Amino acid sequence: MNTVPSAQSRTLHELPLLVTMGDPAGIGPEIIVRAFEKGELGAALVLGSPAVLRRAGSKMTACIESPADLHLVPRGCLPVLHPPGVPDDLVNLPLGQVHARCGAAAAACIEAAVAWMQSGQGRAIVTAPIHKEALSAAGVPYPGHTEMLQALATPAGQASAPVRMMLANEELRVVLVTIHLSLRRAIEAVTFDAVLQTLLIAQRAAAAWDLPRPRPRIAVAGLNPHAGEGGLFGDEELLIIAPAVQAAVALGLDVTGPLAPDTVFMRARRGEFDIVVAMTHDHGLIPVKYLGVEQGVNVTLGLPFVRTSPDHGTAFDIAGRGMADPASLISALRMAKRLSRAGL
Amino acid sequence: MNTVPSAQSRTLHELPLLVTMGDPAGIGPEIIVRAFEKGELGAALVLGSPAVLRRAGSKMTACIESPADLHLVPRGCLPVLHPPGVPDDLVNLPLGQVHARCGAAAAACIEAAVAWMQSGQGRAIVTAPIHKEALSAAGVPYPGHTEMLQALATPAGQASAPVRMMLANEELRVVLVTIHLSLRRAIEAVTFDAVLQTLLIAQRAAAAWDLPRPRPRIAVAGLNPHAGEGGLFGDEELLIIAPAVQAAVALGLDVTGPLAPDTVFMRARRGEFDIVVAMTHDHGLIPVKYLGVEQGVNVTLGLPFVRTSPDHGTAFDIAGRGMADPASLISALRMAKRLSRAGL
Repeated sequence: MNTVPSAQSRTLHELPLLVTMGDPAGIGPEIIVRAFEKGELGAALVLGSPAVLRRAGSKMTACIESPADLHLVPRGCLPVLHPPGVPDDLVNLPLGQVHARCGAAAAACIEAAVAWMQSGQGRAIVTAPIHKEALSAAGVPYPGHTEMLQALATPAGQASAPVRMMLANEELRVVLVTIHLSLRRAIEAVTFDAVLQTLLIAQRAAAAWDLPRPRPRIAVAGLNPHAGEGGLFGDEELLIIAPAVQAAVALGLDVTGPLAPDTVFMRARRGEFDIVVAMTHDHGLIPVKYLGVEQGVNVTLGLPFVRTSPDHGTAFDIAGRGMADPASLISALRMAKRLSRAGL
Repeated sequence: MNTVPSAQSRTLHELPLLVTMGDPAGIGPEIIVRAFEKGELGAALVLGSPAVLRRAGSKMTACIESPADLHLVPRGCLPVLHPPGVPDDLVNLPLGQVHARCGAAAAACIEAAVAWMQSGQGRAIVTAPIHKEALSAAGVPYPGHTEMLQALATPAGQASAPVRMMLANEELRVVLVTIHLSLRRAIEAVTFDAVLQTLLIAQRAAAAWDLPRPRPRIAVAGLNPHAGEGGLFGDEELLIIAPAVQAAVALGLDVTGPLAPDTVFMRARRGEFDIVVAMTHDHGLIPVKYLGVEQGVNVTLGLPFVRTSPDHGTAFDIAGRGMADPASLISALRMAKRLSRAGL
């Protein structure tokens, strides 16, 4: 079926988005089918089990062997690429429950997506939710997507490149220095290197976005109230964050801060900054989610390709009940297209 | 002039709001005059220097000796009560600069306001911004309004009642367990007693508001990401916050939590809760300020009277230049009226 121009000769934005189906027992397959029915999948194909996608409501499924065959799929059919290690008999397992075989299949879809990206046949990866316990039960040695993608994207024998989580919606892009740590440990993890690294990752990623200016305007939120009020409420701003900002500015980045955490997000929303770097999970996520989680998209920065995901989990409690909302997945699909427009 | 019914015989909502002019060198006097010109002062009088208010643009000023005389003030005149210790020659000091005499005058206005409240002649206090350095230069032993009001409201020889800061706008009310501490020290200050005390203060204060239900629905935001994820990301939720919530529920309060900080504010905004209790300054203030600081109002809970203030400072950089926006003061005036409707 490979009579079309080879993938290598096509530019990135002509390639399909690769959508992984996520945990078969969660809402991933059904939100993918809903997004497809709404015409929101666009030039994308799903990596997953055709049987699982049929159980999730897909009426017509077209199996292809390679992303390059996407153009052969008839209108109205969901394009599915069925990777090795994703058995169709997963439909015999109950929805809404942790199962090692579901975790293994979810991981196999991610591995296949990365392999297709590495062979130059995908535009970006959009991942449907996986379940940490299922992954762990399958013996997959990564706690989540981010760590797994980081490892898969790293050539053997090399140290893995640092990655950062970005949460974005239509009006705000927030990149986090620390994520899943207790607040006590997060404070310890705010180091000069971690902050500077985050700034460099944000800068590199933004180069691929369609911002109206060559250098993104990055604001750095402080850690302490009023960004420490000159050392009165904590000295991390003076000893760690300000020096990292200065180092980034010396490298040519457009960085402002550290600024008071309670007003910097409002200022970015009004258009003063393109990106806010936040020190902790909740400083950054509270404003992104405040106007509604449906719009929030999770983006992994620092990978050699664009990867987005909806900002919710497998929702086992409602899986298979026809209640799952594809809005965040649709936002993730749009964001993946937008961020990969200029290549990365 | 005391021929009107005595203040004691009037109900709270018939009494005037007492508005302190704030630091004479800051934007306090001019935002008060702007609010008056917009017809937003309502049944309120200003405690301050008539000369300072004239400098701030007041065209007609009527001096009264007691709040009970407010009804004698002709339409179109700004009602001013000139307290002792507030000299009119403060107008000879430059705007936009720290001065001990300005700090002393600002403090004298606050003292007078509390004294009138204690004699039953005020409905609530609305404070224009003061400057911490000016207060300190004047030898006033309090770092800010909250501590000063707390001390003035406490009968001699008694331990001062605990107070808490609430930030509120039209769609969100947030009460803070800790405020002006480094994040490290804030974590230490999140104790069982501090959380339970905050819940009780919020509950008592809410009894005076016009909520559509007898018991306010209080949500408690956790301290750690995902509210600790069952102890994986910190144990303060398990060891401190959940027990305090349980104790409050045992006392009859309608309290839910600890909930994930990144989604609880969005849930409250959608109407699920009436109040959110947050552990740290920025968890609570980021969402209140996200849609615009103009609407945010600072409310002190735990005092024997209602006190609100705009959510900004003296703005020395723009004082006297006709640029100051009275929006937050107007919100504070409205909030003071609303919160004192039923008495406290």
